[in-house]
Amino acid sequence: MKHSKVSNNVIRRLPRYLRKLDELSESGVNRISSFDLGQQLGLTPSQIRQDFSRFGEFGQQGYGYSVPALREHIAGILGMDRGYRAVLIGVGHIGHALIDNFCFSDWGVKLSAAFDVKPELIGSSFNGTAVRSMDELESYLSENPVDIAVLTVPKDAALPVTERLIASGINAIWNFTNVELTGPDSDVLVENIHFSDSLLSLSYYVSERRDEQQADK
Amino acid sequence: MKHSKVSNNVIRRLPRYLRKLDELSESGVNRISSFDLGQQLGLTPSQIRQDFSRFGEFGQQGYGYSVPALREHIAGILGMDRGYRAVLIGVGHIGHALIDNFCFSDWGVKLSAAFDVKPELIGSSFNGTAVRSMDELESYLSENPVDIAVLTVPKDAALPVTERLIASGINAIWNFTNVELTGPDSDVLVENIHFSDSLLSLSYYVSERRDEQQADK
Repeated sequence: MKHSKVSNNVIRRLPRYLRKLDELSESGVNRISSFDLGQQLGLTPSQIRQDFSRFGEFGQQGYGYSVPALREHIAGILGMDRGYRAVLIGVGHIGHALIDNFCFSDWGVKLSAAFDVKPELIGSSFNGTAVRSMDELESYLSENPVDIAVLTVPKDAALPVTERLIASGINAIWNFTNVELTGPDSDVLVENIHFSDSLLSLSYYVSERRDEQQADK
Repeated sequence: MKHSKVSNNVIRRLPRYLRKLDELSESGVNRISSFDLGQQLGLTPSQIRQDFSRFGEFGQQGYGYSVPALREHIAGILGMDRGYRAVLIGVGHIGHALIDNFCFSDWGVKLSAAFDVKPELIGSSFNGTAVRSMDELESYLSENPVDIAVLTVPKDAALPVTERLIASGINAIWNFTNVELTGPDSDVLVENIHFSDSLLSLSYYVSERRDEQQADK
């Protein structure tokens, strides 16, 4: 994946800012200082100001940030207003969970179709998304604008399906398969969901606490 | 969540190191320098040495790291050798996907039971994990050692179930519900899976590339 001009850490914080701002909006907060925002996110005010300054000036010294304006700005940086379209490949448990419960449209993405090989799924529709046959993948992609493929196929289908996607011009994949899809020199953007990273972080914190409790005895 | 002595960023990198070391092992690599490891992970050698030095000395100047020894050391730091036990609450699509496809034992965690309210699920077993009635939750937790609860219930059940877990002495939750489970002062460890953060990062990179292509025209 090509290196971005903005550091990966900054980019990873933007969705967290967005979630926090949505939360603040919902509780009726209209304006917030970098100090308060930092405290709620476990970041220093200067780190927050630095992150935002990467994308132009907003906020006014002494007045804090307008919550709705900052939210809109960050949503724009994240591309949420660009009308990206996605297809989902593989309607197993995880694909099904995403179609049913993950509000793609809340994040500015339209899920336009799903694909699977199982005859009993093809032609059915979940949460407004029709399931098509994998045989139609190439023809669908040639006729419809698609920006992102969500890959929720079984492990052994991950690489062959990725090849088909790339051959059809898809160059951004949201990967749930835990399989390394591309080599280091590929210019396909792959965003991996690694459940294990998250569980292991929790396991670390549990261990740390146990050790502290042990030491306190 | 209480603040750890080791920075969150370091802890988040440990599972990535682990995955990379597993990958290296599989391809027969036995020893690696911080330079090569850094290059494969997009980190500087000094950052890698600094990260590892937080947990004691390993690696030998000029000789690089032993892949299996480093792997074991990191697994230990992450608590993978502590035999943690987990229960999963909510056998919907996402719960089902985790039981069927996520190898808890690969990460040192034993999934000992699952719970649901749906009568048609109770008593059945998936991938060796029995589904019990939510009515049995408290009695099960009082009789069995459980370190981590995996929360995959629908949104509106998230808070009531969390209360029951905490009342039963559970203080580490792997949260898939997208609901903020605890207040900032809670000492319950909550690790959230936010699918949207990942999709938005991808959306950012897609946007960045489109802008570059536009500018190149």
